[in-house]
Amino acid sequence: MAIYQAPTEDIKFILHDVLRIHEQSSIEGYSDLTDDMTGAIFEEAGKIATEVLLPINEVGDKQGCVLENGVVRTPDGFKEAYAAQCEGGWPGIDCNPEYGGQGMPYIVHAVTGEISSSAAMAFSMYSGLTHGAIKAIEGFGSEEQKNTYLPKMISGSWTGTMNLTEPHCGTDLGLLRSKAEPNGDGSYKVSGQKIFISSGEHDMSENIVHLVLAKIPGGPEGVKGISLFVVPKFLPKEDGSLGERNTLSCGKIEEKMGIHGNSTCVMNYDEATGWLIGDEHKGLRAMFLMMNEARLLVGMQGLSQASIAYQNAAAYAKDRLQGRALDGDKFPDQKADPLLVHPDVRRMLMDAKGFVEGGRAFYYWASTLIDEELHHEDEKKRDQAGLLIALLTPVVKGFLTDKGFDTAVQMQQIFGGHGYTEDWSQSQFVRDARIAMIYEGANGVQALDLIGRKLPQKGGAGMQTFFGIVKDFSKENSSDEMAEFIEPVKNASKELQEAVMWFMQHGMKDPNQAAAGSTDFMHLFGHVAIGFMWAKMAKTAQEALAAGSDNPAFYEAKIVTARYYMQRVMPATTAHLARIKSGADTVMALDAEAF
Amino acid sequence: MAIYQAPTEDIKFILHDVLRIHEQSSIEGYSDLTDDMTGAIFEEAGKIATEVLLPINEVGDKQGCVLENGVVRTPDGFKEAYAAQCEGGWPGIDCNPEYGGQGMPYIVHAVTGEISSSAAMAFSMYSGLTHGAIKAIEGFGSEEQKNTYLPKMISGSWTGTMNLTEPHCGTDLGLLRSKAEPNGDGSYKVSGQKIFISSGEHDMSENIVHLVLAKIPGGPEGVKGISLFVVPKFLPKEDGSLGERNTLSCGKIEEKMGIHGNSTCVMNYDEATGWLIGDEHKGLRAMFLMMNEARLLVGMQGLSQASIAYQNAAAYAKDRLQGRALDGDKFPDQKADPLLVHPDVRRMLMDAKGFVEGGRAFYYWASTLIDEELHHEDEKKRDQAGLLIALLTPVVKGFLTDKGFDTAVQMQQIFGGHGYTEDWSQSQFVRDARIAMIYEGANGVQALDLIGRKLPQKGGAGMQTFFGIVKDFSKENSSDEMAEFIEPVKNASKELQEAVMWFMQHGMKDPNQAAAGSTDFMHLFGHVAIGFMWAKMAKTAQEALAAGSDNPAFYEAKIVTARYYMQRVMPATTAHLARIKSGADTVMALDAEAF
Repeated sequence: MAIYQAPTEDIKFILHDVLRIHEQSSIEGYSDLTDDMTGAIFEEAGKIATEVLLPINEVGDKQGCVLENGVVRTPDGFKEAYAAQCEGGWPGIDCNPEYGGQGMPYIVHAVTGEISSSAAMAFSMYSGLTHGAIKAIEGFGSEEQKNTYLPKMISGSWTGTMNLTEPHCGTDLGLLRSKAEPNGDGSYKVSGQKIFISSGEHDMSENIVHLVLAKIPGGPEGVKGISLFVVPKFLPKEDGSLGERNTLSCGKIEEKMGIHGNSTCVMNYDEATGWLIGDEHKGLRAMFLMMNEARLLVGMQGLSQASIAYQNAAAYAKDRLQGRALDGDKFPDQKADPLLVHPDVRRMLMDAKGFVEGGRAFYYWASTLIDEELHHEDEKKRDQAGLLIALLTPVVKGFLTDKGFDTAVQMQQIFGGHGYTEDWSQSQFVRDARIAMIYEGANGVQALDLIGRKLPQKGGAGMQTFFGIVKDFSKENSSDEMAEFIEPVKNASKELQEAVMWFMQHGMKDPNQAAAGSTDFMHLFGHVAIGFMWAKMAKTAQEALAAGSDNPAFYEAKIVTARYYMQRVMPATTAHLARIKSGADTVMALDAEAF
Repeated sequence: MAIYQAPTEDIKFILHDVLRIHEQSSIEGYSDLTDDMTGAIFEEAGKIATEVLLPINEVGDKQGCVLENGVVRTPDGFKEAYAAQCEGGWPGIDCNPEYGGQGMPYIVHAVTGEISSSAAMAFSMYSGLTHGAIKAIEGFGSEEQKNTYLPKMISGSWTGTMNLTEPHCGTDLGLLRSKAEPNGDGSYKVSGQKIFISSGEHDMSENIVHLVLAKIPGGPEGVKGISLFVVPKFLPKEDGSLGERNTLSCGKIEEKMGIHGNSTCVMNYDEATGWLIGDEHKGLRAMFLMMNEARLLVGMQGLSQASIAYQNAAAYAKDRLQGRALDGDKFPDQKADPLLVHPDVRRMLMDAKGFVEGGRAFYYWASTLIDEELHHEDEKKRDQAGLLIALLTPVVKGFLTDKGFDTAVQMQQIFGGHGYTEDWSQSQFVRDARIAMIYEGANGVQALDLIGRKLPQKGGAGMQTFFGIVKDFSKENSSDEMAEFIEPVKNASKELQEAVMWFMQHGMKDPNQAAAGSTDFMHLFGHVAIGFMWAKMAKTAQEALAAGSDNPAFYEAKIVTARYYMQRVMPATTAHLARIKSGADTVMALDAEAF
């Protein structure tokens, strides 16, 4: 069976040594996040992950979810694991205490989310989607709606879903056909078919709260006529208990490449009773509140599968004896040396280590920006953080899922033929990771959002903030011993600036010129961001060693991995810039018939 | 259901316009390969692929193979499809006419192999492995063995397998434990367990001819004590008819990520009767004859899955309406434009087109070198071709399978959420393509074979030949209109030379320095090779247009795609060189505990 240990030492290093969250007293709640406090939380989350979640991950993959007579049965052990999670108060860890949440900062949720998702991604999606639905109701629902739904959802006894996609439209929501007709009593009759609804129907919670996008007849055409509705599986009575079954049902569970433990449903709404969330025709605003958080979490999913795949591949490479070291037998008393002696196996592990640890730092940093946006005492800081996280969100989503998948594939490679069988879990990690590149806006859509919407926002203020942060750090660390880390980041950051300039010069006249480089821009940005994280981590590690740390091996490994990232990963940026600057001409030249 | 059309126009272009095979009269059989002749063969192969093979591909994935009471049942339709293939004489198309083959050049087999594998990869492996076994018996078997086995295998009524891997060893064959004890009558008792045996047991042929690596007791330790045996499922009687059942059996069919239609077996040999092929303890020589051919075919498998995935994604991108072109509605009378209007969708399709068509040219060129090695009238030319194809084989295998898989993943991306379901075939193409990076020597082993064995062979003669071919072509095409294609290839070729020099300077002292860059070298080489193919294709297309071709759109598309490859793919080489030149220090620095 697969192994998994929450990377608590690495979490501590990033949160407390590098980001120093406990010292950021101007962000509400952060001064409580002492090393001891977060240590205890993440140790416990790690224990649950290893003991409760990891064992059901493979079961979930093999059994999948089954639909029989309208009822969806989740795999063995899912119900019990979910009950244990709710028991521990994990679903509401960062939620509003007014409704029963624990009121901790978002970063705590971000880290526990990574731990759960690493151990059991498909399972963790049930509470992950609920979390997004909570935020949408809290942000846009009426007082009555908040009182009805939030306590149940925060305790986990009710779960939530997002219903956007229809058979003929996903990205292009303007085309959607589901409709909602007013009943005259404030409620609506919601009708239509939604597909790809994660956690759409299951047997783990008392009720399922569907958030559904639909059009109210007579409203504007396209995306401006979309409204958001809450459509519960069971209609809540006034006292909060469960009433009548709503006229909605799961029509089918999709057969998919992975995340078999999550029930991906076709949902049919047949004049189901629903209530408007927020204003008429303004449904996308609320949905995007959910989506933005969901995108960070999906980026994390990519990271999480890379992380567990790496842990298992590293263990296998130390254990499996095959061949001999090129520079002489390392274990002459054994019939062969472990795989780890082979440079090409190490190359794959180092690529993975550089991505997982650097990507984790990037994801945690981005998550602290959510707290800063919402809870910094200084409004200017809040605005600045808001613009920066808006800019970084598509990079977190797109880059961490693209690279997370690639990493899972490389880790599978270390197992040779065994990795291709379903006896080991490497195939599952690859198959599960694959979806993260697609849902919550396919990565191409993230790239377009990045260059088309986020980059120009407020005259490019978010991008300027990012460049400023990198520049300041570079200036402050112009010492000789930091040069090997600062120079590559500075150069790559310049390339990123050059790409921005190129888009400004060419994209205004012809938007295709910019769009043709959008994915390369997202990747270039991702490398700069993670390279910057590695420079910061190297700096912190140098300081810890200079101060005489009692754990020098940990910090020395950080410096080596930072160096590896600079020498072996950062050179990719130049190719991305070249692709961007080649523009759209060859991309757009061919007629449809030529494909 | 998935679509597939054999790319007959592209095949014709590469074989006849670019490689001009019909003019190479100094290679035996090539002057018979007229345009009309190959056109008829490949049209027919394409028809079978579309009508017979494609329909069973998805069935194979969904049903898989089933083992019951020692008997393996292949998926519905496999038996009939295999019978139709044999009926048409396809398995023996390039085999020796003395034993019933059609005696055509290897290139014909290479192309028909691509067509079959594109339509149904898992199915095509049954005859693919037989082909390798035929070559091993023909190369190393006794006259009696050839007469007994070859006619049956060439007609397809018996199939073949390769048995190398054991539970504790794959790459490191020196560790193998299967043994063969002489019976005193020229036969041996073969005992041991083999795993991952493709086509190991099934119901499509009368007999299965297993080629098994085992050790004769008393022989040398390690790889020098390995012998090759033919161990048939049924012992042939003197008259060629089937005799007694041999004591070998399929213990299990592996559960795998893909290629479910192929029975990947655990094979147990329990004092099974076998006969030595070739000399005692020289089994690896014969096995490598099989392996080298198999490696080209596996490279082709990567290409084949990219090819069918591309065809389906292109069709989907033209059909699926979603969103609007950035530079104004293309189909204002429809509710949305097709996906193809979006630059980022086109980017993925152009990357795929550049790889598939360029990779195809590279694979065909490499296949003609096999014919040149075996059948050129000039011995020096034969030797030169032999060294060159030995060098290119790991590049074909490693690069085409790495990029073939990446391409299949990108094509799946174009389908969005639909690509992740098993309703479309994109998931299957990805899952099937994945194995090609692993078997017949994992790609890391290919990279090591390339730099450690093939590159230094005969003082680097193969590499010099390659550089010479590229240089000559560059010199001959120094015209202004070819500059945009020649310059990038020249530069990348220089980088490849620089990498070779770097290995010579650093790898002699410390082999890890070279091995740490082996995979990057293989990729750098792959880009140069395919870039060179694109330069050749651009040249041919320019000539065709200048001569007033009646199909200008075809040639213009070639020029655009060549340009795309130069501008958008070739820049990757610089990053590979930087990685190579960063050496092994950061790769090897960490202790095992740090992973």
